Amino acid sequence: MIRTIHSDHCHLGWDRSIKPVHFARSGETIAFSCRDAGNGHYHHESTAADILTAEPANANPLTGPVYVDGAEPGDALKVTIHEFSPSGFGWSAVIPGFGLLADQFAEPKLKLWDYDTTAKTPAVFNDIASVPLRPFIGTIGVAMAEPGNHSVIPPRHVGGNLDIRDIAAGATLYLPVAVEGALLSLGDTHAAQGDGEVCGTAIESAMDVEITVEVVKGAAPKFPRFETRGPIARHLDERGYEVTTGVGPDLMAAARDAVSGMIDHLSASRGLSPEDAYMLCSVAGDLRISEIVDAPNWVVSFYFPRIVFG
Amino acid sequence: MIRTIHSDHCHLGWDRSIKPVHFARSGETIAFSCRDAGNGHYHHESTAADILTAEPANANPLTGPVYVDGAEPGDALKVTIHEFSPSGFGWSAVIPGFGLLADQFAEPKLKLWDYDTTAKTPAVFNDIASVPLRPFIGTIGVAMAEPGNHSVIPPRHVGGNLDIRDIAAGATLYLPVAVEGALLSLGDTHAAQGDGEVCGTAIESAMDVEITVEVVKGAAPKFPRFETRGPIARHLDERGYEVTTGVGPDLMAAARDAVSGMIDHLSASRGLSPEDAYMLCSVAGDLRISEIVDAPNWVVSFYFPRIVFG
Repeated sequence: MIRTIHSDHCHLGWDRSIKPVHFARSGETIAFSCRDAGNGHYHHESTAADILTAEPANANPLTGPVYVDGAEPGDALKVTIHEFSPSGFGWSAVIPGFGLLADQFAEPKLKLWDYDTTAKTPAVFNDIASVPLRPFIGTIGVAMAEPGNHSVIPPRHVGGNLDIRDIAAGATLYLPVAVEGALLSLGDTHAAQGDGEVCGTAIESAMDVEITVEVVKGAAPKFPRFETRGPIARHLDERGYEVTTGVGPDLMAAARDAVSGMIDHLSASRGLSPEDAYMLCSVAGDLRISEIVDAPNWVVSFYFPRIVFG
Repeated sequence: MIRTIHSDHCHLGWDRSIKPVHFARSGETIAFSCRDAGNGHYHHESTAADILTAEPANANPLTGPVYVDGAEPGDALKVTIHEFSPSGFGWSAVIPGFGLLADQFAEPKLKLWDYDTTAKTPAVFNDIASVPLRPFIGTIGVAMAEPGNHSVIPPRHVGGNLDIRDIAAGATLYLPVAVEGALLSLGDTHAAQGDGEVCGTAIESAMDVEITVEVVKGAAPKFPRFETRGPIARHLDERGYEVTTGVGPDLMAAARDAVSGMIDHLSASRGLSPEDAYMLCSVAGDLRISEIVDAPNWVVSFYFPRIVFG
């Protein structure tokens, strides 16, 4: 029987002095019960007004930390991700002051999701759009070498709030250990998200996840690295994509142009409100760098999967 | 019988004063015969030394321009891409002073490719790596409103050297018309390239391509936009991906870290030289922006398809 780390064993922020909630051996399989990034703030009766009462300091609780026996600075912590048990309830939001186009979206907007806990059927957004699901871990990392409490919002070279949509079942992640025992924590589980997480939220949802931890001596990567064993886009790409671009000398501006272009395009072609288009882009669309060599102008493209519209 | 624009009808640079080589009606299907981006400089006996004798001013010749009847500023030129007839010979190169990691790769390196002209079988890179093919148009655009001759290297809001790997058969591209007649030109055909074109070259290859042009009145997009009708990664994703990341406050630095990490990883795990790994990354790997909202740090990921190694 494997050990389950309950979601009550959670912490806010990264801090190497937080006492481990479990001491694991290298090779051990562990279940983590994860709260959602809103730390339980949202429920079925929530409205957009509740976005304004969410306390940022309570956001993104992480389950852990787990001390892994034998892990030392310079080692890699290998994390194999087995399976997810999603809760079936989730939320997405336009949060004032947060997100790629925060300057263009001042009003709060909330979308609540009830979705299939097997993640096999798309989650209904509205009467014209449904989003294919693929649960993954939004935040996974090890403690930083630097003492003190560090915000959980930015990701760092030791991992954290990476929001990489393919850190899903079947992936194997390598994190650089920075302190003795590694002190692995994770949370911020997502039922679906596109590359970029452009509005700032995915389908945020509490889940249980089962993983195996293993120490690989002396193999610390400079930044997180992972492998994923199979196709990663078959749930999305059957009907192709609508693609908008941004072209110019600044990747951030080009990314903003590409996403703005898609919001305009989806609003005009599908009759979506800009806020709904923005949230759909965040949970289903992908930001890619198409070229980064034709100086002085780069191309960032935003790919929106047409399967969302059936 | 459709009109073929011969590759002798080519120009260097974008200039609205270049005389059209064909006057097309809206809805007409046209074949373009395209030179490679090296303008015929490379052949089966070429070596890395030939990279240093390539004249930059001769690079990236474009077939055209084609005047499309009825196209005016403010319209969209809709270009439907039908099919490619690739030549079967191509080249990739590490060009000193060019590419995402130009500071790390000072020596020229040349790879010549002989590939299946049906593009159905992967092109052999060496005894351990082969690259799945998907021909596309690297440079496609319309004349700029500004008079004078403008370098063909940077892409712009009117298109040009976009190097978007999905402007392939089955795609429909919308370009903003900036001058009367649009003055469409294209070239720089590629047999394969990943998102980013990180070393600065794809599998550069002369090809014929058949397209249909159509004027959509008053529908100019701000930047190029396209649709692609079907799966775009099935030739690549069967065996999953190796993924490296870069994490930090600057997207360009993060992209460089992600690609450097992959070169190190492929060199260590597969025994490739750094130059070979860099070229393989350029023709087969994808740069994605995994998150762009968790201020102040963003995550850029580089996805390398394992199918390249069989």
